[in-house]
Amino acid sequence: MKIAIDGMGGDKAPGVIVEGAIEYTREFDHEVIIVGQEEVLKKELSKHDYKKDRIEVVHAPQVIDMGDSPISSIRSKKDSSISVAVKLVREKRASAIVSAGNTGAVVCAASFMLGLLKGIERPGISIIFPTSNSDNALMIDAGANIDPKSTHMFQYGLMADAYCRFLLGKNNPRIGLLSIGEEETKGTGFIKEAHKLLDDSKLNFIGNVEGRDIFTGACDVILCDGFVGNVVLKVSESLAGAVGTLLKRELSRNIVTKVGSVLCRSTFDALKKELDYAEYGGAPLLGVNGTCIIGHGSSSSRAIKNALRVATEFTKQNINEYIINGLDSYSRGR
Amino acid sequence: MKIAIDGMGGDKAPGVIVEGAIEYTREFDHEVIIVGQEEVLKKELSKHDYKKDRIEVVHAPQVIDMGDSPISSIRSKKDSSISVAVKLVREKRASAIVSAGNTGAVVCAASFMLGLLKGIERPGISIIFPTSNSDNALMIDAGANIDPKSTHMFQYGLMADAYCRFLLGKNNPRIGLLSIGEEETKGTGFIKEAHKLLDDSKLNFIGNVEGRDIFTGACDVILCDGFVGNVVLKVSESLAGAVGTLLKRELSRNIVTKVGSVLCRSTFDALKKELDYAEYGGAPLLGVNGTCIIGHGSSSSRAIKNALRVATEFTKQNINEYIINGLDSYSRGR
Repeated sequence: MKIAIDGMGGDKAPGVIVEGAIEYTREFDHEVIIVGQEEVLKKELSKHDYKKDRIEVVHAPQVIDMGDSPISSIRSKKDSSISVAVKLVREKRASAIVSAGNTGAVVCAASFMLGLLKGIERPGISIIFPTSNSDNALMIDAGANIDPKSTHMFQYGLMADAYCRFLLGKNNPRIGLLSIGEEETKGTGFIKEAHKLLDDSKLNFIGNVEGRDIFTGACDVILCDGFVGNVVLKVSESLAGAVGTLLKRELSRNIVTKVGSVLCRSTFDALKKELDYAEYGGAPLLGVNGTCIIGHGSSSSRAIKNALRVATEFTKQNINEYIINGLDSYSRGR
Repeated sequence: MKIAIDGMGGDKAPGVIVEGAIEYTREFDHEVIIVGQEEVLKKELSKHDYKKDRIEVVHAPQVIDMGDSPISSIRSKKDSSISVAVKLVREKRASAIVSAGNTGAVVCAASFMLGLLKGIERPGISIIFPTSNSDNALMIDAGANIDPKSTHMFQYGLMADAYCRFLLGKNNPRIGLLSIGEEETKGTGFIKEAHKLLDDSKLNFIGNVEGRDIFTGACDVILCDGFVGNVVLKVSESLAGAVGTLLKRELSRNIVTKVGSVLCRSTFDALKKELDYAEYGGAPLLGVNGTCIIGHGSSSSRAIKNALRVATEFTKQNINEYIINGLDSYSRGR
């Protein structure tokens, strides 16, 4: 299998992209195509010892910056690393694309160039996170669609239902809509409309859930707009880090807690790992007709390696097929 | 000083409201007026031993439920505990109102019946939270205005600037706008408009901040819409709890970490306290012409006691005066 990765996307590109790709090819038996400015990428590669038959560079002279407007940059920069990488997937020269670059631009390029699944009007980024009842849960959308319509939320519900059955092995996933109160009267107009669509559906919709319910495992799927989802994701990561810092500061205050802290260290490390999204590395963009994995802008090389791994799994397990079947069986009345 | 409290508002009302009021009058030398269904409240009070000259009950036969629509319930239920309590403030029979009831209804009642400060079109809930650089920061709006205009966000900036100078003693508070990327091109249309207004202002606007920046102390004031603010607040509380649960579970696994955990217990408790919003109890609704403190729906009696304490401090320290002066000096070009 060959995965195309945007070599120029992300705050620490191309360095960490190249390193992550090299780590991935060392650990897994697959190939990577790094897309971007050939000279820059080859120079980066030359710093490392890597398997030359596993890593290919495909030239793309243009770079879409983090601040570029998504739609217009995809239109005006036809030879950007993002567009060229997506084109490789469209032409079946690669099985999937991974990018830690401008999320909006990746979403646009993937939607326009790969097309969307039948019945889906907008793709959504889906993330998995741990909850305090030892179970995992799924959130969609984590940032693809920041100003969605209520119908998009309903479609996210349909895709998440299928994805959650497959990925988390849940038979009839409990789907919640993120709002500011449990009552159906709570929330913006758009949330109230989405509530109605979901409530009238055959999905296992449990109603509105609140921010406090996300990490308790109150539901298996959280639906939210991409703006809120992105903020929640980043707040959670940062808060986990802040708790660690606060604990460390407190624990170093006296000898008793210092000893305690040494004894607990392995646990702190395990916990940090559980809450560290770099472990997951990337999140699939559900709804596009192909595999597209969105990485964090601040991805480390480990995150990039894991994003490539996620792309491989998503493709190998044919997850899109499963979602298509789910959408189809829903539209036929199940 | 007399504080009016909504005796029927909150998930555990009237029990915890009455208990919180009793605890408050025991600890502080002030009086409380509990507003609500007289018979119910007197029955609750009769279960306790309390200072009878410090607690008064004012009858309000109607109750606004958590699911009621704010505007229409304030219009149709003129004798609700919320409306009657606000009226006590308007008539100067009480210095402040505290409610853990339907937030939207409290915001409506306070706005309509007490009026807004000059130059303010919508009030906003302001919360204070700890950051990992040992400093506190302020967020507005935490849920009063879930579909604001960009001008409201600018006005929140003005109020927060004054409030932050006073409360946190910061000379020139760094104000950030919560979005999904640092670049001014990131975010919904409304966020981009607010960015422009703030950027053109004389405030110390540092630009967009992301969810990950909230708890790092990257800025002193975070501006966001009430929907996002409410979600962030509740996610943070819940995540702090989830981290505690995960830690506990991990630490009880073997004897070494168990011993470590016992040695660290005091620290865990201190940390929990730092992240526990019940300590603060309530958050001021900035922009109304009077003191209005919004409590959590799930407030405990301790949270209610602390909300009453916040109301006392806000009134005693004449914080509205300070905000009015700030708005005034800004409009005169500082």
